[in-house]
Amino acid sequence: EVFGAHDIRYFFYIGDNNSMSTAARLNAQAAEQGYELRGIGIPKTIDNDITRTDHTPGYGSAIKYVATTVREMALDNEAVGQGDYVSILEVMGRNSGWIAAGASLCKRRDKPYDPPHLIYLPEVAFSEQKFVEDVQRVLQRERYCVIVVGEGLVDADGNYVSMSSSSIDAFGNVQLGGSGDYLKELVQKNLNVSARSCKLGIAQRTATHCASQTDADEAYLAGQNAVIAAVVNGKSGKMVTLQRGESDTYVCETGLAELSEVSEGTKRIPAEWINDDGVSMNYPFVKYALPLIQGEIDVAFENGLPAYAKLRQLSVEKRLGVYAL
Amino acid sequence: EVFGAHDIRYFFYIGDNNSMSTAARLNAQAAEQGYELRGIGIPKTIDNDITRTDHTPGYGSAIKYVATTVREMALDNEAVGQGDYVSILEVMGRNSGWIAAGASLCKRRDKPYDPPHLIYLPEVAFSEQKFVEDVQRVLQRERYCVIVVGEGLVDADGNYVSMSSSSIDAFGNVQLGGSGDYLKELVQKNLNVSARSCKLGIAQRTATHCASQTDADEAYLAGQNAVIAAVVNGKSGKMVTLQRGESDTYVCETGLAELSEVSEGTKRIPAEWINDDGVSMNYPFVKYALPLIQGEIDVAFENGLPAYAKLRQLSVEKRLGVYAL
Repeated sequence: EVFGAHDIRYFFYIGDNNSMSTAARLNAQAAEQGYELRGIGIPKTIDNDITRTDHTPGYGSAIKYVATTVREMALDNEAVGQGDYVSILEVMGRNSGWIAAGASLCKRRDKPYDPPHLIYLPEVAFSEQKFVEDVQRVLQRERYCVIVVGEGLVDADGNYVSMSSSSIDAFGNVQLGGSGDYLKELVQKNLNVSARSCKLGIAQRTATHCASQTDADEAYLAGQNAVIAAVVNGKSGKMVTLQRGESDTYVCETGLAELSEVSEGTKRIPAEWINDDGVSMNYPFVKYALPLIQGEIDVAFENGLPAYAKLRQLSVEKRLGVYAL
Repeated sequence: EVFGAHDIRYFFYIGDNNSMSTAARLNAQAAEQGYELRGIGIPKTIDNDITRTDHTPGYGSAIKYVATTVREMALDNEAVGQGDYVSILEVMGRNSGWIAAGASLCKRRDKPYDPPHLIYLPEVAFSEQKFVEDVQRVLQRERYCVIVVGEGLVDADGNYVSMSSSSIDAFGNVQLGGSGDYLKELVQKNLNVSARSCKLGIAQRTATHCASQTDADEAYLAGQNAVIAAVVNGKSGKMVTLQRGESDTYVCETGLAELSEVSEGTKRIPAEWINDDGVSMNYPFVKYALPLIQGEIDVAFENGLPAYAKLRQLSVEKRLGVYAL
C-alpha cells in the first residue's frame, strides 16, 4: 500500500537471512495483488551464513579486523606472559562459526602452533572437560593461550551452554553474560590461572578503518548487479549472489538465485574444513577465506581520525495516514 | 647480585607507575651496596597516569584506536537504530579516566551532541539516578545513545560501584563482571530499552594497525634520550619525561625527572577539563589530547594482515644458581 501511494516500482533490500525472506514475502505479495514490482535482494552480513552465495559482503572485512586483532593481542600475551595466561576473544556468530574461524587466518603458513591456539565453533559440540584439557595442553607448550569463541556454544544435545544474558540457573549458580565470560570462569575454576576476556561487539561489524578492499569491491559489484538485474534485465524475486571462479587464482562474479529458494536457515561451516581436534581450521578453509581479506581500503584520515561521510537523511513526505500492523 | 654476575652497568626499565618505583628502588639499592649502575626509567603506559610527564608513550595510540572505534560504532548505531538503542563501550582505566576521556576526540568541532554522548570517569562520583536521567535525556534527543566507560566507576564515598569479577552480593543480586555490563543492567532495569556492551580489553593496548605516528615518534624519542642520558651524560636514577612546548603549535621535547620523585600515585584528569555535566570533556582537554593522535603509522600488510616482526628470544647463559625471593 505504501509502495503504491509513492509509485515505488523497484525495491532493493540489503541485509541478512531475515531480510532476504522479507524481500521474498514482499515480492510474493506484490505478485498476488497484481502490483508491478521488481524486488531484488542483496546479501550483506558479516555472519557469512546466507545460502546460495559463496560468501557475503561484509564477511571479508570482519575477519580481516578480527584476525588483525587476534594477531596483535597474541603479541601482547606472548610478551607479557611470564606465567600461564589465558586470553579469550568473543566474536559474533550465534549459529555459525564463520567469524571465529576467520581468526585462524592470522596463523602463519605451516605454523599450526601460532595463535589463535583454540577456536570454538557452534558447529562442534562443546565439552567442558575437553575444553579444560585443550587449554592445559596449550599452556604446557606455549605458556600462554589465545582462544577465540563465537557467541554461540552448543553442547552435544544442541543446547546453548552459555546464556545470552546474565541470570541464575536452576542450581543457584551465576550464569555470566556471554560465551567469553563463560570460558573465563571455566579456566579460573578448573586451572587456577589468570584469564581475561574481551568482546569486540559491534566494533567488528563497523571497523571500516581495517576493511578489506576485496570485500568493498564485491559489495559494490553486488549492488551494481542488483540494479542491472532489475532495471536493465527486468528481473524480480532474485537475490544477487557472489560466485567464485573455478580457477586457482581467486575470481569473483555475481549471479542470481531465486529469493524464494534462499532458505531462512543458516549456512554453516562444512565439517570437512574443521580439523579433527575440533579447535582449528584446515587448508580448505584457509583457501576459501584468505582471498576475501586481501587489500586495504584507503581510508582518509582527518585530524587523526578516519573521516567518514555523513549522509543527510532526507525524508519524503508521507502520503498515507497512520497504519497499524 | 644478578647484575653483578653479568657485569650489567646500564639498566633501562620501560613501564608504568609500578615499574618506575621498582626502578627507583633498584637504583637506591645499588647505591647502598656501592655497585656502579646507571638506571633510567622510561614511561610507557596507555593509562597516561604517570606524574611528572606531560603524557606517556602509548596513550596517543590507545585513544586514537578508541576514538576511531567509537566513531565507527556510533555510525552503526545511528543507522540501525529505529528505536531507542543504547551502546556501551568499556575501556581500560581503573583509577583514572584518561582513555575514556580520549573517546571524546571523535566529536566533530562545535558538535557537542555528537557521540560519544556520555563518558563516565572515575574522577567524577557516579550516581545511578543521574546516569538514568543522562541516558533518558540523550535518547529523547537522539533516539540512540553511545556511552564510554572506564573499568573503574566510583561512588561519592570512593567505593567501586561495579565488581571486577562476578559474584553475588549480600542481597543475593547478581553482580556482573565489569562496568560496561553494570551500566547495561542499569539501562535494561530502569529504562526498558535494549542495550549492548562491548569490551575492547587488551586489543586497545595492542592495536598497532591504528597507532598514532606522533606517539610512535615520541616513544622512540624517549628511548633514545634514555640511552643518551645514561651513556653519554652519565645520568642515573632519572625517568625520561615528555615535555610540551609553550607555543600554540604542538612541540614535544624530553626532559629528566628524579625517579624517586615520580610518585606511585596516579595522575588523574584535572577537574577543570571536565564539563559541568560530568559526562563530557571541554576544550582544554581536546587541546591537550588531539595532538597526540596525529598521523598514521604506515603498517606493512602481507597477505591481507599486518606483518609484525618477531624478535628471536635469545637468552644469555645463567651465571648464578637458583635463588628464592
